[in-house]
Amino acid sequence: MADEAPFQFLHNEVIQYIYKSSVNGETENGRKITKLENMGFRVGQGLIERLTKDTVRFKDELDIMKFICKDFWTCVFKKQIDNLRTNHQGIYVLQDNKFRLLNQLSAGKQYLEHAPEYLAFTCGLVRGALSSLGVKSIVTAEVSIMPACKFQVMIQKI
Amino acid sequence: MADEAPFQFLHNEVIQYIYKSSVNGETENGRKITKLENMGFRVGQGLIERLTKDTVRFKDELDIMKFICKDFWTCVFKKQIDNLRTNHQGIYVLQDNKFRLLNQLSAGKQYLEHAPEYLAFTCGLVRGALSSLGVKSIVTAEVSIMPACKFQVMIQKI
Repeated sequence: MADEAPFQFLHNEVIQYIYKSSVNGETENGRKITKLENMGFRVGQGLIERLTKDTVRFKDELDIMKFICKDFWTCVFKKQIDNLRTNHQGIYVLQDNKFRLLNQLSAGKQYLEHAPEYLAFTCGLVRGALSSLGVKSIVTAEVSIMPACKFQVMIQKI
Repeated sequence: MADEAPFQFLHNEVIQYIYKSSVNGETENGRKITKLENMGFRVGQGLIERLTKDTVRFKDELDIMKFICKDFWTCVFKKQIDNLRTNHQGIYVLQDNKFRLLNQLSAGKQYLEHAPEYLAFTCGLVRGALSSLGVKSIVTAEVSIMPACKFQVMIQKI
């Protein structure tokens, strides 16, 4: 329980900081989301490098996605992704039924509008990790019932 | 090794972000250090609340400091403080011989000037934790040889 707490609390502070420190009438929500996403991207890049230092080469895209769902997710969130689905055409849906970064928000609907702030960093995290493994992607997230959420990964063919 | 990595990488990104996003000619280093320190303060407050949820009441100040050196440090940095000294008059020196947040910097002297950026958050962390336990303090840090460092805690008697 306490294992991922420092990361969780720091993540919350980063959100607060970015939302409070908006300057020059930079009220646009999109820019803040982008900042969080970029931060996640670089953390994802660093983490995946460390995690894959001693692993064997991945067989294919699906193999990479499984690594993200298991080893990578466990490293950051101390649990695996609960469900991975794919259409075998470059779209993957990663479902986490109890996403740790939403865990501290009340489960009611009143905070649903704030969910994107709490998901942006992780979207970047996944995109950064994939990018370092040579996979270009677009990652989005959606929440239906807190604290469950889905991350959709669209692989960008080059 | 990988356990504290997400926290470490995120911490690095926060430093980068605060140092890059300085606006309006806010070049003063002190303000950035303060921002990092404040962030640490709030994370420390949150963490200690969670960690002490089920612990017995502390006997005295020294008992609290020991908890910071062992349980609290292990939660955040996955190791204990290596040495705790006190003058029994409200000054405590916590020595970490291999401080994780300096670990990624080269051990040479050329980065010594950047050490304060990497220590400010943790100074706040300790101050916030102590504050939530009812102990007001001033926390400073110094590095002589990377990645070893000392945190000095001066208890403020009320």
